[in-house]
Amino acid sequence: MQSESGPTTAGIIGLGYVGIPLAISMHDAGLKVIGFDVDQDRIASLNQGKSPLTHIGDAAITALVGGGFEATDDFSRAAECDALVICVPTPLSKMQEPDLQFVTATMDALAPHLRAGQLLSLESTTWPGTTDEVLLPYVTRAGLVPGKDFHLVYSPEREDPGNPDFSTGSIPKIVGGTTPACLNAGLALYGRFIDHVVPVSSTRAAEMVKLLENIHRSVNIGLVNEMKIISERMGLDVFEIIDAAKTKPFGFTAYYPGPGIGGHCIPIDPFYLTWKAREFGVHTRFIELAGEVNAAMPQYVVDRVVAALNRQRKALNGSRVLALGIAYKRDVDDMRESPSVTVMERLRDGGAHVDYSDPYWKTFPKMRQHRFDLASVAVTPDTLASYDAVVLLTDHSAFDYEMIQEHAPLLIDTRGKFRHAAHVIRA
Amino acid sequence: MQSESGPTTAGIIGLGYVGIPLAISMHDAGLKVIGFDVDQDRIASLNQGKSPLTHIGDAAITALVGGGFEATDDFSRAAECDALVICVPTPLSKMQEPDLQFVTATMDALAPHLRAGQLLSLESTTWPGTTDEVLLPYVTRAGLVPGKDFHLVYSPEREDPGNPDFSTGSIPKIVGGTTPACLNAGLALYGRFIDHVVPVSSTRAAEMVKLLENIHRSVNIGLVNEMKIISERMGLDVFEIIDAAKTKPFGFTAYYPGPGIGGHCIPIDPFYLTWKAREFGVHTRFIELAGEVNAAMPQYVVDRVVAALNRQRKALNGSRVLALGIAYKRDVDDMRESPSVTVMERLRDGGAHVDYSDPYWKTFPKMRQHRFDLASVAVTPDTLASYDAVVLLTDHSAFDYEMIQEHAPLLIDTRGKFRHAAHVIRA
Repeated sequence: MQSESGPTTAGIIGLGYVGIPLAISMHDAGLKVIGFDVDQDRIASLNQGKSPLTHIGDAAITALVGGGFEATDDFSRAAECDALVICVPTPLSKMQEPDLQFVTATMDALAPHLRAGQLLSLESTTWPGTTDEVLLPYVTRAGLVPGKDFHLVYSPEREDPGNPDFSTGSIPKIVGGTTPACLNAGLALYGRFIDHVVPVSSTRAAEMVKLLENIHRSVNIGLVNEMKIISERMGLDVFEIIDAAKTKPFGFTAYYPGPGIGGHCIPIDPFYLTWKAREFGVHTRFIELAGEVNAAMPQYVVDRVVAALNRQRKALNGSRVLALGIAYKRDVDDMRESPSVTVMERLRDGGAHVDYSDPYWKTFPKMRQHRFDLASVAVTPDTLASYDAVVLLTDHSAFDYEMIQEHAPLLIDTRGKFRHAAHVIRA
Repeated sequence: MQSESGPTTAGIIGLGYVGIPLAISMHDAGLKVIGFDVDQDRIASLNQGKSPLTHIGDAAITALVGGGFEATDDFSRAAECDALVICVPTPLSKMQEPDLQFVTATMDALAPHLRAGQLLSLESTTWPGTTDEVLLPYVTRAGLVPGKDFHLVYSPEREDPGNPDFSTGSIPKIVGGTTPACLNAGLALYGRFIDHVVPVSSTRAAEMVKLLENIHRSVNIGLVNEMKIISERMGLDVFEIIDAAKTKPFGFTAYYPGPGIGGHCIPIDPFYLTWKAREFGVHTRFIELAGEVNAAMPQYVVDRVVAALNRQRKALNGSRVLALGIAYKRDVDDMRESPSVTVMERLRDGGAHVDYSDPYWKTFPKMRQHRFDLASVAVTPDTLASYDAVVLLTDHSAFDYEMIQEHAPLLIDTRGKFRHAAHVIRA
């Protein structure tokens, strides 16, 4: 079996936030890496040494390509690979149900090229049972026997783009196998470039681990968002409360409220469990409550803007509003599920003239479901003074908070970044 | 004003889990301490140098009394005190509403003896507004003016009995004052024996900080309790899932499920906010969901015992069941709100012959609402073998888990302490 000496060629399917850092790590560990994708532009750009991700520079991609990495849409080349790692998106459908189309399309494309001696790993976040119920049948239909002549594992990605403290190799990695031999093969592969690999008893357990991590975040953010609303009604500043509570050296972990939740994980992944739990007749009440509370936050922010303008005898309709920050979190350019966009849309729907400023986007990016024909406004004393309201949505480090506090006539602050003042409204 | 030179005599009202460690800390800082209580037995015992708390030895109390500490029920002696600190319980009524009777009874007793130059601090957990809405009127009725000739603060206790890593002095302490001068007086008092005092902007903010800390715990425990039920239905072991998730070095904090929640804080405090929030027309949905899920856990454990016995063709009625651990958490003797008691009662109600073993209680303690005329059973291979089911409820370090795993014919494990085996049922 190939796994005894270890794989020499790895194929990574899905060249995005997860696949690209993984390709670099595997390449650095001495593996030949072939990258698979269906996006022609992305393939061409990578092969020219250009990075599609802001937090990974072109130099890293150039080095990768120089070292033998190739990006391709030719899935027949999967046969060259000893290890295949799937890093495709797992979104929700419009009905908020798991949408595995990218996983199944990948398996459809790979199926004719699966062969004895290969290790197949799924890294996409998904419901417990996906590896065994969705991937395994492809393997057995190919006449392969997991644990004997083929290895199948689930190993969830834990990438945190923009986190300066951790890289792919230094974040411990969970691995669950369809059989004990599969698990061992998975541990051996990941052990080549990950400092700590953590075995669990099954692929289902590994799938659940990833969901628990993101459910934990979703619920804790939901809780502080609810606490924000309660605090505001009571005349308290939730950011002050959280910062004080966090001085407790045990039993408390600080999570912060915001204008809603974004990114590819937290707003989506928990509902994968909600969906699967139905099959077992159990309810995921915390997930659903967190989803409801978090999804209501953009409207809460809009309501606070309207109320703040109203106090100045201004209607939203016709007011000039500047949104600070459109990415879903600080210091990244990631727009996925960004609540800033929802806030901006609703302000615009209410008749406001809405502009934005974001150091990561000179013009408003093209998005599938949203459209703003806007260029980022320079944040200066003069521009600030020209708006009826300025709404801080994403607390990028690059903003000059002192200057903004001084010159914005009315500040709606969803991030607790501004000092208390008559013209500062927490939201 | 007295606060300029600092208090020399402190009165502590309520000599329990909070008041006694506080008395020791204040005494060690050079203050003369008078302890007030209404429990004659406790007063007599303390004055004889005996500790009413297991985690504080008699030697500490003897040293305290030797150093001039006195316990008394004579509240007129409050006039001797420059600082008065209230550490009485704040339970819930039968209707799950805040019961401030111990706070108001304390204030009724103190009121005639309040005088200029005093600092009054409330440490009991309570709803935001209590200090200003309940305590302040006593002060003003006494003709005193907070911030001028009297100081009023709220400073929540953060005691964690049995935690070896932290003591009263090393746990940062939140202080909020009715006026800025009150806050400064409070910071000065606590700064004498607490390493880090943390000022917040108001007594209400300080009250909310403490509630957030305990709400955070209640909700996180509720979440893992729900995840336990979902995991069990899916054939997964939630303890394995949590231990694996906790290898993520950011964004996740492990909380563990159990047979329910106990102690004086977590099951009670959150509902103080629920009650007060009604006045502001807002709902505390996470608190209520956590309360509901956590309160349902003892019955879940009972159901798992019944199902496990049933699989062996045994009815609960007539079965012999041994409960391991009756305290509400590991390695303490604290029985307050212990879910073990609820589990034992329901097993007994179902006709089981129920025994218990707990290294902290040789006989089952007297409780207001529960009665078991039982002595702690020695956990030996022979005794274990004599029970139809053994239920681990409190995971005291003193239990010999290897031996129990080997000899109990059927183990129901609410703490994830036993290895997987046919006779071990997670609950």
